[in-house]
This record gives sequence, C-alpha cells and structure tokens, in this order.
Amino acid sequence: MELRTLRYFLAVAQEENITRAADVLHVTQPTLSRQIMDLERELGTALMLRGKNGLTLTDDGIFFRQRAEEIVELAGRLERAFVEKNKESPPLPKRSLGRTPAG
Amino acid sequence: MELRTLRYFLAVAQEENITRAADVLHVTQPTLSRQIMDLERELGTALMLRGKNGLTLTDDGIFFRQRAEEIVELAGRLERAFVEKNKESPPLPKRSLGRTPAG
Repeated sequence: MELRTLRYFLAVAQEENITRAADVLHVTQPTLSRQIMDLERELGTALMLRGKNGLTLTDDGIFFRQRAEEIVELAGRLERAFVEKNKESPPLPKRSLGRTPAG
Repeated sequence: MELRTLRYFLAVAQEENITRAADVLHVTQPTLSRQIMDLERELGTALMLRGKNGLTLTDDGIFFRQRAEEIVELAGRLERAFVEKNKESPPLPKRSLGRTPAG
C-alpha cells in the first residue's frame, strides 16, 4: 500500500466513477482499475461495488476511505511544511545535497 | 513522497548507517542512498548529514522523522485492521473481486 494508491482510491470514491477519476488523476482507466483491484486483493476485501448508478463504497470501503483521507492529509501537510519553509529560506546549496548519505 | 520512502528514511534514521539500514530493508546500499537523496531533493533540504560517527539527523530530519513515524504507523494500523478482519471472516470470493470496478 502506497500513498499513490490511497490517492487513487480517494479520487475514485470522490468521483464515484473510474473514468472520471482517471481523467482527474491523468492516468488511464485500465491502470486505475488495476490499481484499485490490486488494493482490494491486498486488503482481501471489496472496497467498492459497481451499480447502475456508478460505484458505491462497501462498508470496508467507507472505513478505508476515512483512514486513507487522514493518512493522505498528513502526508500532504508534511510536504507543504517543507514547501513553505523553502519559500522563507534560500534553497539548499548543491554541496549540502552532495553531503547527504552516499553510503 | 511515498510510504516506501518514509520507511526507508526511518530505517536509516534508526540504524544511523546506510549500509546497515540497506541490510534491514533488503535493498542495495546505492538504491537506499539514492532514495534518501531523492527525498532530500524533493523536500529541498538535508535530512541527515554524514559524520565520523555515522549519520546524524538535521533539525529538518528530526522534524521529518516525527511526522513520518506518525504516517507510517497509521498506514500500518490500517493494513493490520484488514489482516485481522480477514482472520475472523472467510476470504473474499473470487467473483466479488471480479465485480470490482473494471472501468
């Protein structure tokens, strides 16, 4: 399970439609369908079911969405914290990056 | 930024040594070094610095580790919730997986 997978699931849950979610995510519909199916296999449960009126979340899907939203929000907040910090301070000198662990 | 990257960073921060962390993670040392360097480039800051006595976290690295631990813990808890659930209930029938969105 990766953050990308969680973001894909949340987009599908939001759009209630794989094709629309794929457009929003700028991925192909088969790629997105595969990612969702792989996630369900990994979790061992169906997160959403297809109906005439689009996708609906299962109880497991509703549970998963709540946790996924929390995790994705925390990760986004962490990334934004560094974006904001870099706006305030000069960019890291190249030599500093060179001093990061090379083993 | 992905959960895998966060787990890699946390292992290096824990071991204070790229080679030992690579052993723990079952990845090569160059792969791990690259992942950490890519993460630092993405964040625009050095998370750790090399010294005679191994790696030490920068202030940004200490900040990042606290948030990364929280995110990885939540993701692990979510995955374990489904593992536990599947122990209690029978595995998902194949046809149910077949009914997951195919687009």
